[in-house]
Amino acid sequence: MSGIVLLLNGPNLNLLGDRQPEIYGRESLEDLVAAARAEAEAHGLALEHLQSNHEGELIDAIHGARGRCAAIIINAGAFTHYAWAIQDALKAFEGPVVELHISNPHAREPWRHTSVIAPVATASICGLGGAGYPLAVTAVARLLER
Amino acid sequence: MSGIVLLLNGPNLNLLGDRQPEIYGRESLEDLVAAARAEAEAHGLALEHLQSNHEGELIDAIHGARGRCAAIIINAGAFTHYAWAIQDALKAFEGPVVELHISNPHAREPWRHTSVIAPVATASICGLGGAGYPLAVTAVARLLER
Amino acid sequence: MSGIVLLLNGPNLNLLGDRQPEIYGRESLEDLVAAARAEAEAHGLALEHLQSNHEGELIDAIHGARGRCAAIIINAGAFTHYAWAIQDALKAFEGPVVELHISNPHAREPWRHTSVIAPVATASICGLGGAGYPLAVTAVARLLER
Amino acid sequence: MSGIVLLLNGPNLNLLGDRQPEIYGRESLEDLVAAARAEAEAHGLALEHLQSNHEGELIDAIHGARGRCAAIIINAGAFTHYAWAIQDALKAFEGPVVELHISNPHAREPWRHTSVIAPVATASICGLGGAGYPLAVTAVARLLER
Amino acid sequence: MSGIVLLLNGPNLNLLGDRQPEIYGRESLEDLVAAARAEAEAHGLALEHLQSNHEGELIDAIHGARGRCAAIIINAGAFTHYAWAIQDALKAFEGPVVELHISNPHAREPWRHTSVIAPVATASICGLGGAGYPLAVTAVARLLER
Amino acid sequence: MSGIVLLLNGPNLNLLGDRQPEIYGRESLEDLVAAARAEAEAHGLALEHLQSNHEGELIDAIHGARGRCAAIIINAGAFTHYAWAIQDALKAFEGPVVELHISNPHAREPWRHTSVIAPVATASICGLGGAGYPLAVTAVARLLER
Amino acid sequence: MSGIVLLLNGPNLNLLGDRQPEIYGRESLEDLVAAARAEAEAHGLALEHLQSNHEGELIDAIHGARGRCAAIIINAGAFTHYAWAIQDALKAFEGPVVELHISNPHAREPWRHTSVIAPVATASICGLGGAGYPLAVTAVARLLER
Amino acid sequence: MSGIVLLLNGPNLNLLGDRQPEIYGRESLEDLVAAARAEAEAHGLALEHLQSNHEGELIDAIHGARGRCAAIIINAGAFTHYAWAIQDALKAFEGPVVELHISNPHAREPWRHTSVIAPVATASICGLGGAGYPLAVTAVARLLER
Amino acid sequence: MSGIVLLLNGPNLNLLGDRQPEIYGRESLEDLVAAARAEAEAHGLALEHLQSNHEGELIDAIHGARGRCAAIIINAGAFTHYAWAIQDALKAFEGPVVELHISNPHAREPWRHTSVIAPVATASICGLGGAGYPLAVTAVARLLER
Amino acid sequence: MSGIVLLLNGPNLNLLGDRQPEIYGRESLEDLVAAARAEAEAHGLALEHLQSNHEGELIDAIHGARGRCAAIIINAGAFTHYAWAIQDALKAFEGPVVELHISNPHAREPWRHTSVIAPVATASICGLGGAGYPLAVTAVARLLER
Amino acid sequence: MSGIVLLLNGPNLNLLGDRQPEIYGRESLEDLVAAARAEAEAHGLALEHLQSNHEGELIDAIHGARGRCAAIIINAGAFTHYAWAIQDALKAFEGPVVELHISNPHAREPWRHTSVIAPVATASICGLGGAGYPLAVTAVARLLER
Amino acid sequence: MSGIVLLLNGPNLNLLGDRQPEIYGRESLEDLVAAARAEAEAHGLALEHLQSNHEGELIDAIHGARGRCAAIIINAGAFTHYAWAIQDALKAFEGPVVELHISNPHAREPWRHTSVIAPVATASICGLGGAGYPLAVTAVARLLER
Repeated sequence: MSGIVLLLNGPNLNLLGDRQPEIYGRESLEDLVAAARAEAEAHGLALEHLQSNHEGELIDAIHGARGRCAAIIINAGAFTHYAWAIQDALKAFEGPVVELHISNPHAREPWRHTSVIAPVATASICGLGGAGYPLAVTAVARLLER
Repeated sequence: MSGIVLLLNGPNLNLLGDRQPEIYGRESLEDLVAAARAEAEAHGLALEHLQSNHEGELIDAIHGARGRCAAIIINAGAFTHYAWAIQDALKAFEGPVVELHISNPHAREPWRHTSVIAPVATASICGLGGAGYPLAVTAVARLLER
Repeated sequence: MSGIVLLLNGPNLNLLGDRQPEIYGRESLEDLVAAARAEAEAHGLALEHLQSNHEGELIDAIHGARGRCAAIIINAGAFTHYAWAIQDALKAFEGPVVELHISNPHAREPWRHTSVIAPVATASICGLGGAGYPLAVTAVARLLER
Repeated sequence: MSGIVLLLNGPNLNLLGDRQPEIYGRESLEDLVAAARAEAEAHGLALEHLQSNHEGELIDAIHGARGRCAAIIINAGAFTHYAWAIQDALKAFEGPVVELHISNPHAREPWRHTSVIAPVATASICGLGGAGYPLAVTAVARLLER
Repeated sequence: MSGIVLLLNGPNLNLLGDRQPEIYGRESLEDLVAAARAEAEAHGLALEHLQSNHEGELIDAIHGARGRCAAIIINAGAFTHYAWAIQDALKAFEGPVVELHISNPHAREPWRHTSVIAPVATASICGLGGAGYPLAVTAVARLLER
Repeated sequence: MSGIVLLLNGPNLNLLGDRQPEIYGRESLEDLVAAARAEAEAHGLALEHLQSNHEGELIDAIHGARGRCAAIIINAGAFTHYAWAIQDALKAFEGPVVELHISNPHAREPWRHTSVIAPVATASICGLGGAGYPLAVTAVARLLER
Repeated sequence: MSGIVLLLNGPNLNLLGDRQPEIYGRESLEDLVAAARAEAEAHGLALEHLQSNHEGELIDAIHGARGRCAAIIINAGAFTHYAWAIQDALKAFEGPVVELHISNPHAREPWRHTSVIAPVATASICGLGGAGYPLAVTAVARLLER
Repeated sequence: MSGIVLLLNGPNLNLLGDRQPEIYGRESLEDLVAAARAEAEAHGLALEHLQSNHEGELIDAIHGARGRCAAIIINAGAFTHYAWAIQDALKAFEGPVVELHISNPHAREPWRHTSVIAPVATASICGLGGAGYPLAVTAVARLLER
Repeated sequence: MSGIVLLLNGPNLNLLGDRQPEIYGRESLEDLVAAARAEAEAHGLALEHLQSNHEGELIDAIHGARGRCAAIIINAGAFTHYAWAIQDALKAFEGPVVELHISNPHAREPWRHTSVIAPVATASICGLGGAGYPLAVTAVARLLER
Repeated sequence: MSGIVLLLNGPNLNLLGDRQPEIYGRESLEDLVAAARAEAEAHGLALEHLQSNHEGELIDAIHGARGRCAAIIINAGAFTHYAWAIQDALKAFEGPVVELHISNPHAREPWRHTSVIAPVATASICGLGGAGYPLAVTAVARLLER
Repeated sequence: MSGIVLLLNGPNLNLLGDRQPEIYGRESLEDLVAAARAEAEAHGLALEHLQSNHEGELIDAIHGARGRCAAIIINAGAFTHYAWAIQDALKAFEGPVVELHISNPHAREPWRHTSVIAPVATASICGLGGAGYPLAVTAVARLLER
Repeated sequence: MSGIVLLLNGPNLNLLGDRQPEIYGRESLEDLVAAARAEAEAHGLALEHLQSNHEGELIDAIHGARGRCAAIIINAGAFTHYAWAIQDALKAFEGPVVELHISNPHAREPWRHTSVIAPVATASICGLGGAGYPLAVTAVARLLER
């Protein structure tokens, strides 16, 4: 198993820093990816990143990680709540999966209270704002040590 | 703020005039877009149009309208009922959003009775057949006057 | 079939302009009826109007429109969500029925998300504020052309 | 206890013979009341009749029957499905109550499958078309014999 | 089409007169069948009767009535609430079907509030006690006149 | 702001003292209104009273209290559980609203467990029998002191 | 009242010892009936036994126990969860009824979590494997002492 | 029966005056107990008070009131919505029970809309802020007079 | 393991060819069994057939197939939707089970959308009309090859 | 493994003999514990007993039984229906767990129909009144023999 | 109408043979397509194949089949359970549609129990493993013969 | 604001390392608290710890943290799913609250899928096993920096 961590960001996360900053903060996605990459390197891990508004591209990327990446961190955005095909794809991945959210979905609208990712995630981190990105990498490092 | 109105048509609307004409009428999508464009020009507005069967392309188009278009008219087709990522994208758009349907979804199957677009739409027009397209443009013109 | 359009306003709409102006706007019901009447006349149609807080009076008025009016526009207010007897009355009317709301009920409390009018309405317009009244008349004109 | 039977018809039943004859038949309400009255007289009973589209008038009539009428036959139309105040009024009536419907509500839309009248009705007759009116009187006669 | 009416009584109705007389009355099933038969003969109809605690026997009897009997009266007892196979059997019968209950199921436990018979019944009579049996025959006679 | 308290009683409350005395007590509505009026006068308040079985009349009365009365006490009877138009009317009233019930609805049938009045009521008093009427006036007096 | 206890076993219990022994154990139905009979005799009671895969035969047997048997022990197998006609039959039995299950239905599939027998059972014993049979007889003996 | 009223306050009510004053007001629990005690004394009653964040202590206190106190006033805080063991304890108390809330739970989060106390409460008072405490004592005095 | 395939047909399937031919086709059950038998023989398998309207007889037949038949094909008719005892019986059968339907239940009434057979079926075939019978035999042959 | 059986009684069971004797009988808790102890001694087992109205104390006691007691009998009273922490504690106990109820919860209020204990109980006994206590000990003896 | 059959495979089916072989078998997608093609050719039909993880591509392919292909076989993978836009697309296709699944979804997680494809499918085949692919082609051949 | 972090562990967490190690791991609670304390000290924070099986003690501890501690980390165990009083207590705490779970509740039983803590938690971390404890402290440090 290699030392690559795949970071996936789903729909609308390309707008970070710009869209609803009172909920999602003022850092751009590039800022968060950079922070995550720095944390990965501190743990001797490489970070690959993909943001997409297309469910199919996220599935393709998960398939591409099979047998090649050590772990997946996924903030699936709104896909979290209905994109069952992503659940099936993640189930076919051998390593740990960390579900990540910037805000706390359980403190928001009811439709954000169910996650189709959660049942197949190893771990889940939410509500830490941008700080969740490097922390999710730390979490992956801990899970890979087990 | 510019004078461009973005008209979005979701999945299967490219079949208009051909598919289930007893429900959707005999006019083609091109006919309806032309009628909407004429109405827009009568109000001094420009009309941009995109039809796509891909949820991701609709999201990309909504993102592209931010800070550039004055309003969005969206007939999301079946995406209306489950594509929460489109709701998130529309929430990040600053101008008015008009939800449009050719038929009256509430007089059809139960799964068409809930709309993930409705909670973020400024206004909604349905059941007018093809005539709804230019009327939605008139509605946008009224909303922009406010 | 004559050229009369019946406009019905249900409970509490007599308070328009005064009650919760942040939701319902500052125009009075008289203003909105006048705007609708002007639009009707522009289409060669006459407009009759009734506002009532009594479900039975609205039903009586719908009965009175049978065989005499060309179309009905109805903003049933809170009756929208439980007054099934109005649905039965509208079903007995031969012409098009346009359901009208000043605000967008789907962006408000859950009990406003179901409509007993919608399944028998030809078309529905909501969320345009007072501008919805003349627009509903335009919609009726289009429907009568078909 | 007198020998008066109160027959109540709720909203839209004044349209009988005219509205949706494939469901409700071609006889007018007057025809059905006459048939019921004839049957009542054959049993030595008098028949009083009220049709109203106003829930409050039906409640007033039920109150007026207390201590004066022997039985109530009620076809509450659409009020059957939500007018709980009529249930309370009927509960305060001492004699037998027969719920009557021209069509079979259970073979129609789901919202017609629950009745707020049924839990307080002594008996219920439906689906017999206009023939249900005199039969309901026969039923009352049987119930009064007990 | 012959002049035979098939009367079917489902599970536990053989206990009539003996079981919970405060609900079901003190007349035996034989008494009620005799009253129904007398009423049938008064209308020039013959009455066949079967009581069974076996769902399959009731289905067999309904099949046997096809093309031979003019109408079916069925008090399916508790089968009313779950024996969908009886619904399918009745749907294959060409003549009118009258659903009959001695008590008013809607005034009893919630599980008695849904009927799998009702959607395929032409008419329904309940709550009249034993008097419902001859009245159901009268109702059949009316339905056959149509 | 004046010192008038409007007391509204909904459907069937005119039967008080007579209907189901084991639940509603043996005092007549006149007795209860008199007790409430005495209590109001003790607090230097005037009491206006309306009982109606008509939802529309209650709405009209609430409208008439706007800008004229200091508070509303409402025992909406069975309307409590479905008359959303009364909720809308109360929301348009500026002063405190006290919901009142003679019995404790939560200890009765399930349909009495939800109240469309409660979400817009300032306070609620139930289960005290007739004593609730003067106590509701005391409560209003306290609320007006704040 | 005699000293006979009727033991009823419903569908598929004839397969005991053979079917899913990890759930139902390795003892045959004959073994369990013998153990129950021994326990009955130790209490001076006689044991009658019927196993049937036919709902109607179980109902017939319950009817046959009326006025003749002192108590019924019933393991209704899958009928437990939908055969309401058995509930009606048991309700017509005068003596105590003990519901018996070999496994603990609440630790299995959701459809086994509701019992139509439970509301009319005096007592219930489950999860003891074959040992539940003689214990149910002991329980009956205790109930008959009261 | 003595003249002692037991006032019980459940979890988090010790924070009154400090926690969310926009909902619960600025008076401390001591202030409210003092006001209640004064009102009790005015009616010739003694007031005992216990506040606890422990469900078991509240149950113990209710048991201790049996045969010794005349009435219980209980503001069970969040226990109101799930602590069924308190319901059982109150059911075993012989005197009247008044449920009390400072705010109106029905105007807050959905989980506050159901009360396990309500079905066993004689009466209920809510939404009056701190003024509810002495008013609940008045209510008890009225109930004890009956 | 022998080479016998047991084909079971549940309630009302004896009416095939005669009942609702627009749904179930015009072939008789004998025709379909003959086609299935021919297909079985082409695969070197023997076909046994039972049609019954009695749930208990179908259970008995499934029991009789244990240790004797290689596979079961079952079209349980309306029993599909509630006869849990058949599920238990099938679970005790060692070989493959193919669920068969002539029409597509998911395109019909909601109560036909759940199947108590499906969770224990190896495979399922529906919507092919009479052609489903020989195809189910082909499917069994494939499953037995595995 | 020792020969100690831990008997736990939850909230309000200290009132036995006194509270609602028509449901719970007239024996005191001491009587029932004594009967259980006698039965335990007859089987060569020792009985420890704790009654508590505090969920935490019951959890502490279950923890204290780990590795020391052979079995637990628990009548959790109202905690049965919501105290999931007790389920977690019981899951951590190695021996058999018998759920015990004096009355039959399924014949009482709906909230008593679900048990959070049942899914982790080995066996369950209810509805036998006080006789259930020694019988539960007999059941434990049988389970320990396996 | 041509002789082309379009075979569509949805998300994650490209992983066949590799992902969860205990559920989906060890054959690759290429193997299954080859088997289906051979069967098609045996029936004189041509087979076109597309696998995609993108909902939009599947919709585009269905549109492309209109007026050109004779039938569609679709294994929509996880899209089966939420991609309503595929339902709309299939509804616009004129020929028969066969829904195909390798495993039996009804024996798996609850979210796999509902299918948005089923209501518009002509026929459905599931649970046969890879053997389902050629069998679905046989089924199509039978449907085209009708 | 001080630099104290309060770590709360709810019911059954005292069994860590011993109970269900396949879910909760083999480290004892003392190990996890030590690791959290070390991480706290590395961030210049002090750590206070309380484990309790008593809901009331956890509430008392949260109250004690008001105005004294900088943040709360809470693993409420099974209380997570029903102890609303803890939600109220946490709402009255001014600093950030981190919800912590050792396993991933969403991959376990349905009753673990809802959390009454989540709506008032700032952030949530789960599924990391014992490693979640120090990571939650890191998260608190990040939140306090904001």
